[in-house]
Amino acid sequence: MFDRTIWWQGDLVEVIDQTRLPHDVTTAQWRSLEDAARGISTMQVRGAPLIGVAAAHGMALAMKEDPAGLDGARKILLATRPTAVNLRWALDRVYTQLSVVEDADRAASARELAITMAQEDVAACHAIGMAGLGLVQAAHERLLVEGHERPVNILTHCNAGWLACVKWGTATAPIYLAHREEVPVHVWVSETRPRNQGASLTAWELRQAGVPHTLVVDNAAGHLMQQGLVDLVITGADRVAANGDAANKIGTYLKALAAQDCRVPFYIAAPASTFDGTTIHGTDIPIEERDPMEVLEFGGHAVAPSGTVARNWGFDVTPAAMINGYITDRGLLSGERISQALTPDA
Amino acid sequence: MFDRTIWWQGDLVEVIDQTRLPHDVTTAQWRSLEDAARGISTMQVRGAPLIGVAAAHGMALAMKEDPAGLDGARKILLATRPTAVNLRWALDRVYTQLSVVEDADRAASARELAITMAQEDVAACHAIGMAGLGLVQAAHERLLVEGHERPVNILTHCNAGWLACVKWGTATAPIYLAHREEVPVHVWVSETRPRNQGASLTAWELRQAGVPHTLVVDNAAGHLMQQGLVDLVITGADRVAANGDAANKIGTYLKALAAQDCRVPFYIAAPASTFDGTTIHGTDIPIEERDPMEVLEFGGHAVAPSGTVARNWGFDVTPAAMINGYITDRGLLSGERISQALTPDA
Repeated sequence: MFDRTIWWQGDLVEVIDQTRLPHDVTTAQWRSLEDAARGISTMQVRGAPLIGVAAAHGMALAMKEDPAGLDGARKILLATRPTAVNLRWALDRVYTQLSVVEDADRAASARELAITMAQEDVAACHAIGMAGLGLVQAAHERLLVEGHERPVNILTHCNAGWLACVKWGTATAPIYLAHREEVPVHVWVSETRPRNQGASLTAWELRQAGVPHTLVVDNAAGHLMQQGLVDLVITGADRVAANGDAANKIGTYLKALAAQDCRVPFYIAAPASTFDGTTIHGTDIPIEERDPMEVLEFGGHAVAPSGTVARNWGFDVTPAAMINGYITDRGLLSGERISQALTPDA
Repeated sequence: MFDRTIWWQGDLVEVIDQTRLPHDVTTAQWRSLEDAARGISTMQVRGAPLIGVAAAHGMALAMKEDPAGLDGARKILLATRPTAVNLRWALDRVYTQLSVVEDADRAASARELAITMAQEDVAACHAIGMAGLGLVQAAHERLLVEGHERPVNILTHCNAGWLACVKWGTATAPIYLAHREEVPVHVWVSETRPRNQGASLTAWELRQAGVPHTLVVDNAAGHLMQQGLVDLVITGADRVAANGDAANKIGTYLKALAAQDCRVPFYIAAPASTFDGTTIHGTDIPIEERDPMEVLEFGGHAVAPSGTVARNWGFDVTPAAMINGYITDRGLLSGERISQALTPDA
């Protein structure tokens, strides 16, 4: 079984093809910039951190094809997905670094950098896990004090697991570390229509890892919280604005509203590369609108009458006021301390 | 094309088989109490008002089979669905009326009463439409004053259309009347996982009626409201408690939360038979839990890895404080005036 989402196989980039999960565990090979761009836009790979790392790998493939095509390659990859800021962050970093390298050395440098960025992502996700572990432990202690003999119930949305990153995941990293530390956890997995990444990816991941979990439809999140069945909500993010508003998979805002109403703590888990100081408010974040067929069909089966019109926004924005904190690779940050995630590494 | 959901065909009860929509428009025939009970529990017919009327028809079939089996038939039908109070209301009414009728006359009386209750439902839904029409007209006038040249955007959840009743519907009745009055309306249809009644039933109904509409996933409701794309939310209800809390299809609470946060008016449309004075608080309403397979599969296609555990609650409860008003067959009621819906007809 694979233990990471993306790697080099000789001169090719190999990725777990996430469009085939959970039924087929298979890989896709990228030989070219074109393969990488198609792989990102068709969501063979997805998840903000992985999109960034995958774009860096795409740049490396592009430099092998044409070391002079730095600008063109950057433009093509930047156009694949608009919401996750990690894409721009990764491309800017690769671009800046390669632009001072001779053409002859660019392919090797780009490959080196892609590998480094993948390693950094693994480290960042592990740091996120360490920053969030205390929240899960504290929730468990609270349950014990209150005399509840049950695991900590954590609700997540979409997939912010290791499949969304290189390894560990963002929202799942504290869960995996808690499970390893034998803190009893149970995860409510939200299906995540229209592409069902909760059902197909998060449920698959947690099953592989042996973490107890239960699948529910997206509509069930409010009822779960009203019934006291959720101790903690942790989701990922595709972009956190300077004011703390967070764009994440459509439906995240609804979960934050329910968490606020039911007094359940709501946390965003994301690496520093997801924090975007140049986007001032959440309303400034571009929201990707995808093919309506994702809404109209389900596994090739038409859901609605033929001819029905549908709209398909991929993300929504959760206001900072509803977010109890940000679990980052630079520690657990409050809204006031969010600027720490925006400060370049020392 | 059919213009109602349930009718007598000789000695049989015929219903539109809603499990086959939108792809097949076909009917099911009920010959016996057993057929009726199975038809209600498998959701050939569904929707609180229709469940009540269908149960009355089931009692009529039962009385034809065995006029002495009043208690047994009532018990069997009452067990089919727990949340919608209309079922109990209808069965109590039939039971009370038939218990003072001689065995020999029960079959005829029961049939007569079922027909009467269907006619009353048509009238109640039309009255709901009239009570809600003013809200749609007022929203349209507000748009004109503000200089917006667009239709009134109404969001609904699940199917509280004529398929949920005998004719007209509850949440859709004001929409159909507004459309007939040439008030421009556009309906956001929420898919409504796990059984997709929005996509398969509401989209189908609105298409038949020529009312403009757009399908979105349940997750999109918050984003729509944040973007100012919803002027009014109207849903049905399966039971309204004496304090005004309303149980409706799972996910309704999430829409009410978003409506409150985005200052979009949120209304419940329901006939008097949905108001239950004997249930004091929303937390007292029994919430049906259905087969997890409804969550794990979609059109026979597995969504999650084999062996995944799922839970499947059918309803959630929206607190009265989030409900701007109740559109009923006794007029548009505020929370304070809800007792009017609970007072028996003069």
